[in-house]
Amino acid sequence: MSIPLKHFKKGSIKPTLPEDDVLRFYSMRFCPFSHRVALLLAAKQLPHHKVYIDLIEKPEWYTEYSPLGKVPALQLTHVAGQPALVESLIIAAYLDEQYPQRPLFSQDPLQKALDKILIERFAGVVSAVYPVLTCNPNAPPDALQNFEKALDVFEQELIKRGTRYFGGEQIGIVDYMIWPWFERFPSLKYNTEQGYELDAKRFQNLLKWRELLAQDETVKATATDVQLHVKFQQSKLQGKPNYDIAFQQQ
Amino acid sequence: MSIPLKHFKKGSIKPTLPEDDVLRFYSMRFCPFSHRVALLLAAKQLPHHKVYIDLIEKPEWYTEYSPLGKVPALQLTHVAGQPALVESLIIAAYLDEQYPQRPLFSQDPLQKALDKILIERFAGVVSAVYPVLTCNPNAPPDALQNFEKALDVFEQELIKRGTRYFGGEQIGIVDYMIWPWFERFPSLKYNTEQGYELDAKRFQNLLKWRELLAQDETVKATATDVQLHVKFQQSKLQGKPNYDIAFQQQ
Repeated sequence: MSIPLKHFKKGSIKPTLPEDDVLRFYSMRFCPFSHRVALLLAAKQLPHHKVYIDLIEKPEWYTEYSPLGKVPALQLTHVAGQPALVESLIIAAYLDEQYPQRPLFSQDPLQKALDKILIERFAGVVSAVYPVLTCNPNAPPDALQNFEKALDVFEQELIKRGTRYFGGEQIGIVDYMIWPWFERFPSLKYNTEQGYELDAKRFQNLLKWRELLAQDETVKATATDVQLHVKFQQSKLQGKPNYDIAFQQQ
Repeated sequence: MSIPLKHFKKGSIKPTLPEDDVLRFYSMRFCPFSHRVALLLAAKQLPHHKVYIDLIEKPEWYTEYSPLGKVPALQLTHVAGQPALVESLIIAAYLDEQYPQRPLFSQDPLQKALDKILIERFAGVVSAVYPVLTCNPNAPPDALQNFEKALDVFEQELIKRGTRYFGGEQIGIVDYMIWPWFERFPSLKYNTEQGYELDAKRFQNLLKWRELLAQDETVKATATDVQLHVKFQQSKLQGKPNYDIAFQQQ
C-alpha cells in the first residue's frame, strides 16, 4: 500500500492509502505554499502520508479533497467524514491549535493579528518575485526594484522587532510562513541574466536571519537543494514543469 | 473634536481624534469588507470612532494606518504605539479573541478551519458578482451563470449543515462575513438589464437564511437601504463613485 513516488496526473487512479488515521498531505514537490505545511508537520513531528499532485494535468479525483484543485490540502482521516483542509495558512492555524507541541502562533491576540498581517503582506514579495524569476520578456523593467521594495518591508520589520527571528528569540509562525521563498531566492543567481543575489547591505538583517533559519532542524528536514530548485524552475520556464525531477535524481 | 461626516480625500488634513482609548475604524461607507468589521463592532457593542476614506483620491496620511491604502483598518488607541490592524478577517479574529462577549468563531479548531475555508471560498462569489453588477460590456456572456455557480456552493453548504445559520442555531462568523454581499444582492434587480433576482427555488435555503439574518439586531444596526446601494453603484458605474451620497441624503 505504499504510495508511488510521483505526481499524480489526469487519468490516474486514486492511490489507495492505509486506513491508519494518519494525516494525508496533498502537495506539489516544489510548491512553496505546500512547503509551509511541510514545515508545520515537521515542527510538530506529525506522521503523514504524502500524495503529490501534477498541477498542470490535475487528476480528476483531486477535487474531492480540494474543490478548486489547489495544493496544499490536508486530509484528516481520524475525524468523522475525513474532511480535507485547504489554504496553507488555515492548515497552519489548525495544526497549531490542534497539536499544541511547539506552539508557533502567538497566544496574544494582538501579536497574532500583527503576525498574520505581516504574512499577508508577504504576498507582495511572492507576486514581485515571479517576473524576476521567470525572466519574463513582458516583465516590467522595474521588476527587480519592485521585488526589493517588497522585501524592504521585511528587512525593516526585523529591525523594528529587534529580535533574532520574526517570532522573537524563538522561531515563530512568520518565520516558517515566509521561509519557503527564502529557500528559493538563491536560485535567482542561476535563473537571472545578471546572476542576482540579495544585496548584502540592504538586506543585512534578513540575510543574517536566513543563515540562522537554515540551521533549524525543521528547516533542514524539509530542505531542497538550490540546484534542484534551479532545475525545476528551468523546466517551468520552458513550459514543461518537471514535477518528478526530485525523484528521478534520487 | 467631532469627525466631519465625509470621506477624507487627497490633500485633506488628518482629523484630530480625541485621545480617549476608543477604537478608530477607518472605512468606506459602502465597502462590503468594511461592513464585515462594522458587524463585529456592533455584535460586540464596541464603541468606536469612524473615519471615512475616499478610495479613489486617498488622503496621503492614510498609509500611516494602512500601508497599502486599503480599508478597513482598525486602530487600537488603548495599546502602546497605537497600532492599526488591516484585513477584514484578521480584524474580525482579533476582535473575537480580544472581546469574548458573543463569540463568533467556533472554539473547535476543526470547525474554525472549515468556517475559514468557507469564507475564503466566498471570494469566488465576490469576484463573480462584479461583472454582473456593473453591466460591464466586456463581461463574459456567462457572467450570471458563473455568479450562480459560485453561490450554489453556499446553498449546498447550508443544506449540508442542516442548520438555520452557517454558524448553527446561532449566527456565527461565516454568517457575518458573507452578509455584506447578501445585503447588496437585491440591488441587482435595479442595476441589471434583466432585473435579476436570486432564483427562489435554486437558492431556497439561502433566501430563507437571508430573511432570518435581516431580522438580526446587529445586521439591522449596520444596514443600508437597497436604494442607497443602487444609487452608489450607479455613481460608480458612471466612473464617479459618490462616496458621500449617504450623508447628503440625511
